[in-house]
Amino acid sequence: MTVGILGGGQLARMLGLAGIPMGLRFIVFDPAPDVCGAAIGRHIQAQYDDWDALRAFAEAVDVVTYEFENVPVAAVAHVEKYCRASPDKVALHATQDRLRENRLFQSLDIATPTFLSVDSASELQVAAETLGYPLVLKSRSGGYDGKGQVVIRDQSETDERWSETQQRDLIAEEFVPFDREVSIIGARGKDGDMVFYDIAENTHTDGILRISRNCPDDPIRSQAEELLARLFDKLGYVGVLALECFQVEGRLLANEYAPRVHNTGHWTIDGAITSQFENHLRAILDMPLGDPASTGLCVMVNCIGDLPEVESCLAVPDAHFHSYDKAPRPGRKVGHVTVRATNSRDLEERERRLLAIQPKL
Amino acid sequence: MTVGILGGGQLARMLGLAGIPMGLRFIVFDPAPDVCGAAIGRHIQAQYDDWDALRAFAEAVDVVTYEFENVPVAAVAHVEKYCRASPDKVALHATQDRLRENRLFQSLDIATPTFLSVDSASELQVAAETLGYPLVLKSRSGGYDGKGQVVIRDQSETDERWSETQQRDLIAEEFVPFDREVSIIGARGKDGDMVFYDIAENTHTDGILRISRNCPDDPIRSQAEELLARLFDKLGYVGVLALECFQVEGRLLANEYAPRVHNTGHWTIDGAITSQFENHLRAILDMPLGDPASTGLCVMVNCIGDLPEVESCLAVPDAHFHSYDKAPRPGRKVGHVTVRATNSRDLEERERRLLAIQPKL
Repeated sequence: MTVGILGGGQLARMLGLAGIPMGLRFIVFDPAPDVCGAAIGRHIQAQYDDWDALRAFAEAVDVVTYEFENVPVAAVAHVEKYCRASPDKVALHATQDRLRENRLFQSLDIATPTFLSVDSASELQVAAETLGYPLVLKSRSGGYDGKGQVVIRDQSETDERWSETQQRDLIAEEFVPFDREVSIIGARGKDGDMVFYDIAENTHTDGILRISRNCPDDPIRSQAEELLARLFDKLGYVGVLALECFQVEGRLLANEYAPRVHNTGHWTIDGAITSQFENHLRAILDMPLGDPASTGLCVMVNCIGDLPEVESCLAVPDAHFHSYDKAPRPGRKVGHVTVRATNSRDLEERERRLLAIQPKL
Repeated sequence: MTVGILGGGQLARMLGLAGIPMGLRFIVFDPAPDVCGAAIGRHIQAQYDDWDALRAFAEAVDVVTYEFENVPVAAVAHVEKYCRASPDKVALHATQDRLRENRLFQSLDIATPTFLSVDSASELQVAAETLGYPLVLKSRSGGYDGKGQVVIRDQSETDERWSETQQRDLIAEEFVPFDREVSIIGARGKDGDMVFYDIAENTHTDGILRISRNCPDDPIRSQAEELLARLFDKLGYVGVLALECFQVEGRLLANEYAPRVHNTGHWTIDGAITSQFENHLRAILDMPLGDPASTGLCVMVNCIGDLPEVESCLAVPDAHFHSYDKAPRPGRKVGHVTVRATNSRDLEERERRLLAIQPKL
């Protein structure tokens, strides 16, 4: 069986590493010439509006999936004429527009930060009166890793911040003084069967995920699972889905979802019985889902900009190195390291050692 | 960094799957046109006496290793002119001749079954008088998976069995009424640092390994480690090394060693903190060795001839499927499945389920 992946980055690479032992072959489709996902299969280098190339790709594989949510919906729709796609274009379409996504959350009684659509300076004024300051102004589409977002701290900053935006297709959100950021990741099979991983507690630096840690037996877990299950069923979803939330006291506010394997689930490669990558493949290939239970406490540290020295990382007990074989570049995710332990004291000590050897951001 | 592997079979494939996350790239060198190790890197298809191809291969990589012990020593020696090889030709040379290998064991005070060299019918007669019946007649070189061996049960069988052999370059060994077959696998770094895995208890069917299970805290472990450590130091070995033994009451008799990652260590992919594949790469690249501790009880079942249905295997809790993406053929190892559990009752139940769905041999 051959799996086609739209996008040839590190998520494709890790899907391949999980799938090759299952006897799967991979073709990645990506416009870029030199992609790190090509290590695990064939690479079709073509644009997402090259309909002939998309068709040839779809006809060469048994199922298509995607590894990032900015793949044009039209590309997935075209592929679906020739091959099954999981997740399908529906899940992709909803998440490509923050307004649409937030309305989907609302329709499912999933709480979000209060938001308003903003397409002009006067609408921004209305939003500021409604939400107060600080407020967050986000591009409705195309944002990732904190890009396309500005925070307006008070009235006096408004003009300057406004000039930094595209001044239309924006969404204004209340600034949430969250206690922590968490994500819940699960997989849903064609038959509606679902599994959920430990929730992850996440720390961002300059808008980019820096650290995720799994939280076995977290009190918020059942609430998080409930929200993800609603989304799963509404979308008739097949595959791995991640929901990122702000936690404010005992309550979760949905921030966004990602219809794919997710950076806050990378710890599952080394720390769960079945990784998110394997479970995504099992789901889209209609195989039984695997046990998502964690095998210990994990901290995953993203390597941003450049890799740390591999020898130093591997000298930390139970550390697992994941290079994406990408050229260094400021702000770029080029790898991650997961460290695991069976008790929190060991974990803290190992995390401290690991963080000390990361290149300065 | 690029690792070159002589041989492009499943061991190369699994080395690649362990090494890609470490940021490594791979080139496999194999005369066969369609090798399953090509899934993880580039394949140079050339003969082992194609000196130009070997040189180009050696010059394209940072270190060379081999994945089976019947690679001609001359090929490794040629490669070593242009690139470091780990393990080196010394370890390979000793194991390619059973007589030489047994004498090496003797020189290290590692007990073996009693043996004699046999190059003629009259020498066989002497061996039979010395060893008694049954005795085992083995080809000194080239044997694997039980090939190149005959058992002579009594005097009357001698002529018939003798006619099945090459009638020279043989070794006669006493037939050992062993309690069990075990193997010990470890890794040794350049600095002489060593790690050892749980010993594995192994069951063969028709000379081919069928089942390995790890034995945490086995009483024979320290004896086994001691023997392997002697071999490591004598050979100045760098990489993973496996020693297969017969256990007779509390005593180990060395059967043979393999200077490479080993089938009886495949359980370490899913059941140890650091797999034998990762530790082999760490060793040959002079990186710190990883923790070999097991994370539970494992049974590994080889898929011989054909694969079982993947869905049925994955329905068994904590089962991990490893297809080698090889065409089915009687007697061929085409994959393995490892099942893990935290207690022996669960393990037995899962093993039973797994064995029930294997294709008939």
